[in-house]
Amino acid sequence: MMQEKALVLFSGGQDSATCLAWALDRFAQVETIGFDYGQRHKIELEVRDAFRTALLAARPEWGAKLGTDHLIRLDALGQVSDTALTSDATIAFNADGLPNTFVPGRNIIFLSFAAAIAYRRGIKHIVGGMCETDYSGYPDCRDDTIKALQVALNLGMDRRFVLETPLMWLDKAATWRLAESLGGAALVEALLEHTHSCYLGDRSERHPWGYGCGTCPACDLRAKGWAAYAAPETR
Amino acid sequence: MMQEKALVLFSGGQDSATCLAWALDRFAQVETIGFDYGQRHKIELEVRDAFRTALLAARPEWGAKLGTDHLIRLDALGQVSDTALTSDATIAFNADGLPNTFVPGRNIIFLSFAAAIAYRRGIKHIVGGMCETDYSGYPDCRDDTIKALQVALNLGMDRRFVLETPLMWLDKAATWRLAESLGGAALVEALLEHTHSCYLGDRSERHPWGYGCGTCPACDLRAKGWAAYAAPETR
Repeated sequence: MMQEKALVLFSGGQDSATCLAWALDRFAQVETIGFDYGQRHKIELEVRDAFRTALLAARPEWGAKLGTDHLIRLDALGQVSDTALTSDATIAFNADGLPNTFVPGRNIIFLSFAAAIAYRRGIKHIVGGMCETDYSGYPDCRDDTIKALQVALNLGMDRRFVLETPLMWLDKAATWRLAESLGGAALVEALLEHTHSCYLGDRSERHPWGYGCGTCPACDLRAKGWAAYAAPETR
Repeated sequence: MMQEKALVLFSGGQDSATCLAWALDRFAQVETIGFDYGQRHKIELEVRDAFRTALLAARPEWGAKLGTDHLIRLDALGQVSDTALTSDATIAFNADGLPNTFVPGRNIIFLSFAAAIAYRRGIKHIVGGMCETDYSGYPDCRDDTIKALQVALNLGMDRRFVLETPLMWLDKAATWRLAESLGGAALVEALLEHTHSCYLGDRSERHPWGYGCGTCPACDLRAKGWAAYAAPETR
């Protein structure tokens, strides 16, 4: 495994940043891919470089492993979607329980582009932060979806990719513990300071759990996860 | 079936144009989707409107069924690919037998975007011209790929899409016969005049089988298919 290469879907959010550390701990070479599709929290993309720098400050030995960052412009996704994530509408929840930030099949499209890049780069492992545990209702984060997509991609590209989802069965507190085990307090601090989750792109104030408006669903999830990690006895 | 809606992947090539006629014959409402990704045979996109017009001249009763055309800009695909189809390199065949026009997983990405559009538009059937019979070696045209992808899309979007591939088991002569059965000589003529297959975008001369350079793999396949259809006894 250690001689193999990985491509990490790295948005600049907490989950994908933790996945990047996980991949650097496990694989011989690691590249990253991000998508710019006019999302409102474009700030996520802007923190990506800062996180990569802070990550290597926390674990300098990973410097030799961390390779190219592929940033793919995907305006088409905004063209397809009419959801809050890519417009100025208010974040809310649809009748089916899905947040109106839902871009249908977004992760399928992201993973398909990642596989196309991985194909060209000779990379076998594709790593994403999909998770069903603190589940927002996005069906494209489900384990069943990812496993079916692995089969479709491997048939459709005639390769043997492995879609790795190390956070699938972890809650947010466990994700923080994973980060701590991978890079100690320095990595936890890098995640707090240099990753972004808030749908509104608010970075005006540093909370115990990082930056954000504190009220959107993404901030709410992040704050609760941090609280459960930082003071487990109060859960 | 007749009360249901379909979305047809319509590139402007012969196969997808035949699929459009097939869908209009079968479904109550039909929309089309095309992708502009910097392909060299951009002429394919330019003939799309002309074909839609000629199709309705051949079968005027289809006018009430034929709806919106969605044209999605997908520059990202050109960004990912370094193949001949999106650059000025010469068309050739790689060591693995695939044409170097191969964009890995292209049809998976197209079908995923089509499903996102279909989700928003309340469309169940997604129709594509994928075919394994006159097989160029593209693994994303294989029936196994399409069936696995249907499962991944349905899980990932929590819907029940049906991926329809009416040409999967037809050779090119049979595809011409299908067109004739759907729209007679007028549809065959519309396909000859207003669809495009040539990788080089050559429309300088009308051959018996339509326009094209006559020497690239796509022209070669089209010319042979026409010959088999037009003069089956000489096969």
